[in-house]
Amino acid sequence: MPYEFYYWPMIQGRGEVVRLALEEAGVDYVDVARSDEKQEDNRAAILAILQDPDLERPPFAPPFLLDNGVMIAQAAAILQYLAPKINLIGNEETEKIFAHQIQLTVTDFLMEVHDTHHPLASALYYEDQVEEAKKRSANFIELRIPKYMDYFEKILTNNKSNSGWLIGDKMTYPDLSLFQIIEGLQYAFPKAFSKINKKYPKALALRDAITVRPNTAVYLASDRRIPFNTMGVFRHYPELDTS
Amino acid sequence: MPYEFYYWPMIQGRGEVVRLALEEAGVDYVDVARSDEKQEDNRAAILAILQDPDLERPPFAPPFLLDNGVMIAQAAAILQYLAPKINLIGNEETEKIFAHQIQLTVTDFLMEVHDTHHPLASALYYEDQVEEAKKRSANFIELRIPKYMDYFEKILTNNKSNSGWLIGDKMTYPDLSLFQIIEGLQYAFPKAFSKINKKYPKALALRDAITVRPNTAVYLASDRRIPFNTMGVFRHYPELDTS
Repeated sequence: MPYEFYYWPMIQGRGEVVRLALEEAGVDYVDVARSDEKQEDNRAAILAILQDPDLERPPFAPPFLLDNGVMIAQAAAILQYLAPKINLIGNEETEKIFAHQIQLTVTDFLMEVHDTHHPLASALYYEDQVEEAKKRSANFIELRIPKYMDYFEKILTNNKSNSGWLIGDKMTYPDLSLFQIIEGLQYAFPKAFSKINKKYPKALALRDAITVRPNTAVYLASDRRIPFNTMGVFRHYPELDTS
Repeated sequence: MPYEFYYWPMIQGRGEVVRLALEEAGVDYVDVARSDEKQEDNRAAILAILQDPDLERPPFAPPFLLDNGVMIAQAAAILQYLAPKINLIGNEETEKIFAHQIQLTVTDFLMEVHDTHHPLASALYYEDQVEEAKKRSANFIELRIPKYMDYFEKILTNNKSNSGWLIGDKMTYPDLSLFQIIEGLQYAFPKAFSKINKKYPKALALRDAITVRPNTAVYLASDRRIPFNTMGVFRHYPELDTS
């Protein structure tokens, strides 16, 4: 039975790190909320689970994955569960621990990126918090992007196998997530990121290496890859892209 | 060899969910940054690891745990690693998955709580973002506290074993974290939380049940339990506690 993946159909959001893993691995899966032949919106499938009053182990929010009756929610937990089954992490325990740790840091980063355009509340429109978003974004650009990017570059630099990947000598699922972060930053903050990205040659090389992997290249060129837009986690608002 | 736990010595912060687990389990551990006889500040031990340029698998931030040379960072990952070893989760795989999922939701919640008083930037003083903090807190009180608390109450209600715990018929580590959330909300938002807490009888009963567990009761009464204060994740600023 194919994996059933549940996430909002119009955005990359917090779900894209899972879609990237499923696509790179080339496994059989259904993107449930986009699964009819026209890839039309089927959010009802997500809401039916979120609003089921009787579910003993409910998810708090999408993304979640169904694998033969086992439900896993939270992107990082999904990847931790999935990666050994789809060959995106090795068998060594300390490698798995470190991969998950990196992925949880990616989770934190995505939450911070989201709050650059919604510093006051997700429930309010962007237009109602533009001034606050400018302040939060300026700080994010000045301090937070470098802090996270320095961290990822340090891992790539200190990897003793010098493979160009984050862990050991093979591509693993956090590499796909770092690709997504770089793509997202280039989309959301093109001016600001272009001023500092030369400090991160290894991270940029990793991004390039992911782009040309056969399965991922097919995915990125397909309409299954939802374009970045101003509904997702990474949003391009020129007024926030200061430098 | 005792577990070595690294977290900032003056706050509960994101590390307290781990301290609660170590204390409830009654295992031998060293709280490294507070470990001298006067429990004085030993932040240098944390910074030495964070700033080590050569570490192959560095943590992004505390908390982190050292267990015989294995380092695990991120509170939820630490608990996932630790709980089976210290008898705070059962052996069943789906229970472990659900426990971790709940813990990652706790992680998200703690990040949101932090941003009620720091909506613009962690690097800025609270005093420089009070007006924005008021707006974020009002929304947090109106929408986010109920959304999370409804979720936890639903899990307690739908647990078929009707044990009063989140998972199965035994106390597990996410129960300790839910205790911490309720204590934190009562400290930070006493007026607002007292208006809605009657909607969550099972969560409140769980909090009470944790309070009287022998090891935890000793811990809570000791000076190892750092009091809530206005440096941590949960902060009480009366101007944010609207209702």
